[in-house]
Amino acid sequence: MKYPFLIISFLIIVSSCNQTPISKNEEPPINKTDSLAIKKIFDSALTKGECYQWLDTLCNTIGGRLSGSPEAEKAVKWGENLLTSLKFDKVWLQPVMVPHWVRGKKEEAYFTSNGTTYNVPICALGGSISTSKNGVKGEVIEVKSLEEAEKLGEQLKGKIVFFNRPFDDTLIETFRAYGGCVDQRYSGAKVTGKFGALGVIVRSMTHNIDDFPHTGAMSYGEIPENEKVPTAAISTKAANLLSETLKTNPTLEFFFKQNCETLPDAPSFNVIGEITGSEFPEKYITVGGHLDSWDLADGAHDDGTGIVQSIEVLRLLKLNGIKPKHSIRVVLFMNEENGLRGGKKYAEEAKNNNEIHIAALESDAGGHTPRGFSFDSNSENYNLFMSWKPLLAPYGLHEIDKGYGGADIGPLKSETISLFGYKPDSQRYFDYHHAATDTFDKVNKRELELGAASMTSLIYLLDTYLN
Amino acid sequence: MKYPFLIISFLIIVSSCNQTPISKNEEPPINKTDSLAIKKIFDSALTKGECYQWLDTLCNTIGGRLSGSPEAEKAVKWGENLLTSLKFDKVWLQPVMVPHWVRGKKEEAYFTSNGTTYNVPICALGGSISTSKNGVKGEVIEVKSLEEAEKLGEQLKGKIVFFNRPFDDTLIETFRAYGGCVDQRYSGAKVTGKFGALGVIVRSMTHNIDDFPHTGAMSYGEIPENEKVPTAAISTKAANLLSETLKTNPTLEFFFKQNCETLPDAPSFNVIGEITGSEFPEKYITVGGHLDSWDLADGAHDDGTGIVQSIEVLRLLKLNGIKPKHSIRVVLFMNEENGLRGGKKYAEEAKNNNEIHIAALESDAGGHTPRGFSFDSNSENYNLFMSWKPLLAPYGLHEIDKGYGGADIGPLKSETISLFGYKPDSQRYFDYHHAATDTFDKVNKRELELGAASMTSLIYLLDTYLN
Repeated sequence: MKYPFLIISFLIIVSSCNQTPISKNEEPPINKTDSLAIKKIFDSALTKGECYQWLDTLCNTIGGRLSGSPEAEKAVKWGENLLTSLKFDKVWLQPVMVPHWVRGKKEEAYFTSNGTTYNVPICALGGSISTSKNGVKGEVIEVKSLEEAEKLGEQLKGKIVFFNRPFDDTLIETFRAYGGCVDQRYSGAKVTGKFGALGVIVRSMTHNIDDFPHTGAMSYGEIPENEKVPTAAISTKAANLLSETLKTNPTLEFFFKQNCETLPDAPSFNVIGEITGSEFPEKYITVGGHLDSWDLADGAHDDGTGIVQSIEVLRLLKLNGIKPKHSIRVVLFMNEENGLRGGKKYAEEAKNNNEIHIAALESDAGGHTPRGFSFDSNSENYNLFMSWKPLLAPYGLHEIDKGYGGADIGPLKSETISLFGYKPDSQRYFDYHHAATDTFDKVNKRELELGAASMTSLIYLLDTYLN
Repeated sequence: MKYPFLIISFLIIVSSCNQTPISKNEEPPINKTDSLAIKKIFDSALTKGECYQWLDTLCNTIGGRLSGSPEAEKAVKWGENLLTSLKFDKVWLQPVMVPHWVRGKKEEAYFTSNGTTYNVPICALGGSISTSKNGVKGEVIEVKSLEEAEKLGEQLKGKIVFFNRPFDDTLIETFRAYGGCVDQRYSGAKVTGKFGALGVIVRSMTHNIDDFPHTGAMSYGEIPENEKVPTAAISTKAANLLSETLKTNPTLEFFFKQNCETLPDAPSFNVIGEITGSEFPEKYITVGGHLDSWDLADGAHDDGTGIVQSIEVLRLLKLNGIKPKHSIRVVLFMNEENGLRGGKKYAEEAKNNNEIHIAALESDAGGHTPRGFSFDSNSENYNLFMSWKPLLAPYGLHEIDKGYGGADIGPLKSETISLFGYKPDSQRYFDYHHAATDTFDKVNKRELELGAASMTSLIYLLDTYLN
């Protein structure tokens, strides 16, 4: 593309059927005031956007910000300063105690087969114990599920258990592929320790076949201390190589060493800003993402994009002279990744203060091009939300349907609140998720801004139509 | 994302509303045979895809392949060998003479203001003449449109004319922003040479503010030789700097030197493969992209992705045991970028051979995540095509509407043919288009494969429902 002669005819042909919101036969008529307000929101996001610069600062001057780390503390200060500079009606920090797990010295791993040593890209899973200081070494037993491991029982004794069920590539929505595998990472160590396994390694949670291990939360649940074994993720390329090598050499030995540690809980904060409602100041609509991230990269897509988009929502409302009827809050939640303490604290305080929360929106699925919103709500508002489809379709937001809200806003769930999840395109997300590849350069400025405008438009509609 | 507890409830909530094609109230009932055929196509594309590997070879062993270049010749051989290895019913080369423009030695440019020299990233536009061997130097006159340049008339004499109208960032569909600016690149030199301008520089065709100049076709039209002036694109960052500097120093001097040349037309080929129809072998459905690319990078998104997706369409039909009723042709068109000779030749030969072409599909808008298809057709089939929306929506293909087909298939246009353009997401496309950034690493495997599956599904439907 493109021979310019033909662009002209293209423009003539499409000019009547793109961009300008046009009602279709099967769709309800659209409200012109809303249509114009949304157009103004998108125009301002795309020409006067600030969220991309904010993300640059967050990623490139602070970087990864795991709960309890000095970087997380810096991120809290950065968030507070930014919200203050934007002159919202209220800005405050909400204290919350968070888990404090540290990775320690970089992990090492290799396996040896027929005299050849293969180095393995590896990273400890968040919450894991360390190995002994000399590492752990043993034969490997490969399994594809928690159930298979449970069945093997005592055969796991003295072995390193290797969970290797890959993503189902046929699932179009990549979060479904993740959801179909992540039990291995989260609970692999919990189910195998009681059989005397030496350790657990897990195939990284990604479609990509590459050299990057992806970390993420694991849990030992309530098992006794002496059943806890160290657990780590290995890259998909290494997982494939190990699996292949095991076929011809089932007694090969795998070594890994990690130095992670769980310290006492640390003090931290949710960062909150508010535009107070003009008619119903006691009723709240929350928009947010999570300020913490894993430590292997800069947490650009997870969830730097959600953070800066959520702040941009309030800025764009102000910039466009929209005075919301309800109080609109942006919340930079702390500790989504390994505890959800921030989300729980926010809901707890809301309850303590008898706040009325009518809606919440979370952006925590990356900063790629917008696709739509999923909502978790009572059925009363279903038709209302679906009636917004023609207003949002001109901006590529076609997927408006029931579904998930978000982890941080989940604790707000009640009979009366509507929880929304912002849904960007998901195809690239697990290339970066929890890995060293989740850096600022993977974020596209326009895609980020379109997301912020999409979210602002939804908040505008919620404020306009909900009581 | 994501705290895994919540993934489970997410899956429960969404499992009934995603992926599985479900007819909505307002939508026609979907045909189960078609639904299953399309599911099989997507499953095979995502688990047994070959197009990403092909693209790797095309980009990384051949690279940029401007018409008439040795690389274009290699690409023809690569295409012929690949189609032959896939054992389609017929494979042949269709000879076509193509323009042969060469860039020559790397261009140079700078401007000087108040004793400081600023180097300017620059590239000659395809079809431009060279400067004299010492380059050209002169004062700069900045304009925002061809009309403004025409009005200035004799004031352009002895000047370097600087076309600097930027993309309109508020247009959601980025091809519309491109279409609104590209006249400056294509015709800037044509309209200014007659006034005695020394040369023309044009702001690069991209939203991005960066250091990469974007080349592309220009034309002198029918103007006399002595009115032809050299023309080049400069990076957007340099364009902004130049424009700013001109405000305080309107007499600054700009220098550029380029060594490009138009050689005699060269022999080349369209590369064609065919699966011959089982019922109507004399009726054709064509799918294709263009094999040539600009020379500054590997032509990954423009249009390597279109090429490998088009080939994958025929392979996926075979792989899934689909025996089309009509003859399905893949065409790797030569010379879309600076002549469209391949597209014209294919249509000419179709006419000479009295071939009946009922449909054609082009992929030439990049390899990003699928959004839909636009079609240029008589109104008879409108309802048929729109009835396919519920079949395609589960795969993210929501944008099925009237619009542009494609440059290469354009010459096939008639009263009876339906021309389709594959429509991937467009937000990142102009970051790479015609610039040194258009490399293989910018292509995501799943997005590419989803596009190939989308195209195969459309070809399946066209073959099934058209006569």
